[in-house]
Amino acid sequence: MKIDAVDFFYLSMPEVTTEADGSQDALLVRVAAGGLVGFGECEAAPLPSIAAFVCPMSHGACQPVSASVLGRVINGPQDIAAIAADVAYNSMDVLQAAHTWSGIEMALWDLLGKARGEPVWRLLGYPASHPKTPYASLLFGDSAQETLARGQDALRRGFKAAKFGWGPIGRGTPAQDADHLFAAREALGPDGILLVDMGQIFGEDLARASARLDALEQARALWLEEPFHAHALQQYGELAKRCKSVKLAGGEGAHNAAMAEHLIDYGGIGFVQIDCGRIGGIGPAKQVADYALARGVTYVNHTFTSHLALSASLQPYAGLAAYTICEYPAAPKALAVAMTQNHLTPDAMGLVRAPAAPGLGMEISAAAVQQYQVAVEIRVAGRTLYASPLF
Amino acid sequence: MKIDAVDFFYLSMPEVTTEADGSQDALLVRVAAGGLVGFGECEAAPLPSIAAFVCPMSHGACQPVSASVLGRVINGPQDIAAIAADVAYNSMDVLQAAHTWSGIEMALWDLLGKARGEPVWRLLGYPASHPKTPYASLLFGDSAQETLARGQDALRRGFKAAKFGWGPIGRGTPAQDADHLFAAREALGPDGILLVDMGQIFGEDLARASARLDALEQARALWLEEPFHAHALQQYGELAKRCKSVKLAGGEGAHNAAMAEHLIDYGGIGFVQIDCGRIGGIGPAKQVADYALARGVTYVNHTFTSHLALSASLQPYAGLAAYTICEYPAAPKALAVAMTQNHLTPDAMGLVRAPAAPGLGMEISAAAVQQYQVAVEIRVAGRTLYASPLF
Repeated sequence: MKIDAVDFFYLSMPEVTTEADGSQDALLVRVAAGGLVGFGECEAAPLPSIAAFVCPMSHGACQPVSASVLGRVINGPQDIAAIAADVAYNSMDVLQAAHTWSGIEMALWDLLGKARGEPVWRLLGYPASHPKTPYASLLFGDSAQETLARGQDALRRGFKAAKFGWGPIGRGTPAQDADHLFAAREALGPDGILLVDMGQIFGEDLARASARLDALEQARALWLEEPFHAHALQQYGELAKRCKSVKLAGGEGAHNAAMAEHLIDYGGIGFVQIDCGRIGGIGPAKQVADYALARGVTYVNHTFTSHLALSASLQPYAGLAAYTICEYPAAPKALAVAMTQNHLTPDAMGLVRAPAAPGLGMEISAAAVQQYQVAVEIRVAGRTLYASPLF
Repeated sequence: MKIDAVDFFYLSMPEVTTEADGSQDALLVRVAAGGLVGFGECEAAPLPSIAAFVCPMSHGACQPVSASVLGRVINGPQDIAAIAADVAYNSMDVLQAAHTWSGIEMALWDLLGKARGEPVWRLLGYPASHPKTPYASLLFGDSAQETLARGQDALRRGFKAAKFGWGPIGRGTPAQDADHLFAAREALGPDGILLVDMGQIFGEDLARASARLDALEQARALWLEEPFHAHALQQYGELAKRCKSVKLAGGEGAHNAAMAEHLIDYGGIGFVQIDCGRIGGIGPAKQVADYALARGVTYVNHTFTSHLALSASLQPYAGLAAYTICEYPAAPKALAVAMTQNHLTPDAMGLVRAPAAPGLGMEISAAAVQQYQVAVEIRVAGRTLYASPLF
């Protein structure tokens, strides 16, 4: 199958706010090859990601992503890996390229699975897709009372695990944070799984992060996620040594497998969280899952957008029965819900799993794409390099 | 001074080829504040870098770079650092943001220096700007004969040091590479400083890189640059242990200070090479210079474009007399030469230094900008987010 076309659909809610909700827009990718189409989704900024696909070449190691993709032959997983290597080399100096490529890579797996009539997790070598306990991703409330209410709401909706993040956490005193943490634990009850996301709020400040450890451990948080910048390996490593029961979690910012592996090797994390829409797709995410498995670190997906992205992010560890937790967008915006016709709804036990249908197993809604699509045109030197395609 | 405007000028040669020559295009940045203007240059892909400045917000941690820059007050170096921190946080999920911000940051230092009548290196705390020995950046020839001729030409032009890179190196056998390395040494004579750049050709393949060490040491190369991907810390660290006389060099791919520091701490490099057009500008580059100094690692600039970028890249280590080598674009394309009215020409001793004039000390040529400017228009949802500005 030859890659005939790669189309980007920039979708957005009519209004986008500064809240830490990544489901307010989406960059959907459609790849056509061999008479089939596959779909993927790039996480993060749509416009720069489109630009990285269509930009004029700057030099041999600064080529647009399109140069390594269009016209390529794709008959098996090894072909996806070969294109990935070419993108990494030929677009070495286009920093955004990893995000652009991530959505294309997902779409290639989807397409390959459809061609073979197999789910992606089987193409990855897994004999089965094991169930995962979804955790609700929630934002801390403005007050501890609001945090309590949000946690209780998640529990009512059937979640046995919840992650609280962003909002006021880390911005005030350790005592104020403790109030939120104890409220979150109270909401989930003694058996609920409590996860905490600090959203890089401490930058590289080890002392401020350390000042929250006692409350995290008293509230029996399973993990402390992203206390620092994605690159602060030394600070991660130092903080990890100071943890008693709580473990560090991180990795969503990794835009290649090596970055995630460094968080394991040098940062001492206990949970590695991978966003297939950023790390370069499903292939490098699987590499990180294997790496984590060999080192006793738990792999978890990072997903805050659509169920297309959710299906993709479950594939790399679908077959690893011991890794039972998965991030589940608990309150996505309307476009993220509407984008797919089907959804990975929790079963009677409250569990979700990567679907058994071919490819990623998700049906894209043409009506939703049309409703939410943003018109974009990029012209360079008198030529139209990009114009929003019709679905 | 309030930042009133940030303008991007995308310049390009009429023809851009796949050769490893980063001077074929340029993204010039002009910042206006307090009735003054400052100039900077983003390294790497212009179109995605412009897109990262103007893109619509995706969510609170995925805002365009413009959101953290326009309207900000800039009265001292601490204001530049504060804006840098905001860009890192607010544009956390816009991968290209670091490249975009790099050129703006340079321009802010230029502007601040002009406002104070001081060169940037003095604003960084250096009492003097020490001379550096420029090395010519050359591409390996297609044959060892051609490599020899290129080295001899550099010597005739007065260079005492030369770096050979890219071209066929690493693509054939170790014996073929050895022919090139010995030809390069022959060209430079016994006293010439020989530097070698493998341009990430070995990816993560330690064995293939190791197979070149003997010839590198026999040819008395001072450094082996970028044998691996920018993120291959473990491979760098392993190869460093196998080196006897040659030292590893790397860092040009760093898009924040931490990445460069990890190459020092975990990668065992002996030379850290920083491109101010990528790492986030002059501030984080100075941070890396201080970090390197404290650890016995030599700081070197990475510059393959204009003399505006060259001046910026000399500032972070201008005052460090012990660091005597600097990269010098030996054969830049016409636009990179024409972009500035003045140039950092080697003195009678063949040495260059960061200029004593205020700011970065470079005059931009309006005629060159007009001659090489590429017309770009980006429209989103019916609004023009970017149109090439007039100089």
